[in-house]
Amino acid sequence: MKGKTFIIAGPSGVGKGTITKELFARQKNLYFSVSATTRAPRPGEVDGVHYHFLSREEFQQWVQQDAFLEHAEYVGNCYGTPKKFVDEAMARGEDVILDIEIQGAEQVHRKRPEAIRIFIAPPSWEELEHRLIGRGTESLEKVRSRLARAKEEFSAAADYDYIVINNSLEQAVAELQAILLAEHCRPDERVNLINGIG
Amino acid sequence: MKGKTFIIAGPSGVGKGTITKELFARQKNLYFSVSATTRAPRPGEVDGVHYHFLSREEFQQWVQQDAFLEHAEYVGNCYGTPKKFVDEAMARGEDVILDIEIQGAEQVHRKRPEAIRIFIAPPSWEELEHRLIGRGTESLEKVRSRLARAKEEFSAAADYDYIVINNSLEQAVAELQAILLAEHCRPDERVNLINGIG
Repeated sequence: MKGKTFIIAGPSGVGKGTITKELFARQKNLYFSVSATTRAPRPGEVDGVHYHFLSREEFQQWVQQDAFLEHAEYVGNCYGTPKKFVDEAMARGEDVILDIEIQGAEQVHRKRPEAIRIFIAPPSWEELEHRLIGRGTESLEKVRSRLARAKEEFSAAADYDYIVINNSLEQAVAELQAILLAEHCRPDERVNLINGIG
Repeated sequence: MKGKTFIIAGPSGVGKGTITKELFARQKNLYFSVSATTRAPRPGEVDGVHYHFLSREEFQQWVQQDAFLEHAEYVGNCYGTPKKFVDEAMARGEDVILDIEIQGAEQVHRKRPEAIRIFIAPPSWEELEHRLIGRGTESLEKVRSRLARAKEEFSAAADYDYIVINNSLEQAVAELQAILLAEHCRPDERVNLINGIG
């Protein structure tokens, strides 16, 4: 049985990382897509685990070979989702989880319309603001700009396959697990499992 | 939150009844659609519980008023799924489970394309034959005719939203529960739950 690709996207601060981590703690047969990047490894970062570290030349070569499902430049460094590892995991029968930004999700959707898109939403904008402020790492101005961007990005959510509202971690992870299982009950996967057809 | 309608259909002998019963034992907020019929109540059958018992005149009136989601005649008696109770249950926020035949499912799908269709399939045709013979209530000829019909009906399964294979009761019910939960994560239901949009 081939795995499927699940795009998990949502605004900054919504808790995607926590939800995804908990999903992996509970469920087997999942592959977390590791990004490629041109930025230098930080102390403790392992090639192939935290990132696939590439030189700028290698990265450009991958782009030219259409080896990325999506890629972007951010503060002078390139980031991308390599097709190769995603496809290998699916061939092994693992479901692939892509934890990416809204723009990246758009790119993947164009290349792989069959990938299932899940939008992680905050219970309310007030709550998202509260969480962004709670991080304490950014100025109020930066928080407000992130919030404005989150509201803008939310307009894309209606086109997603699913919206998971991160109100409680328990409920959010249960919903993700339900979505994964339900998507494996689709006819394209199942119709050939019954023998003697035709 | 409004409930949704789930059509659970599949060939005779596949175990729909057992799966549905177990689903109701595990999950709240479900409404089991009770059929209307013109056949006389059998001893112990309660109006509104086992069936809504209608006279032939009443039944025809309901048909004329388009009060059924689907209806059919079977061995001289009429059977139908009343819209009214389905709609009332959904308005109360309950999910409606329609345990119906393939032809009935087709009718409901035409009237309510938003209803989610789940096909319950046997693990194999051999297994279905085995179960039909195991009932011991029908001649081998009748079993073979049911089996031929089941194979014919299975051609509809590819158009369904989901296929649940009744291999183990545990797995089948878990999949049904996952489908129900996943369908409540759809954007049409969720996109307005985030405040401050627009």
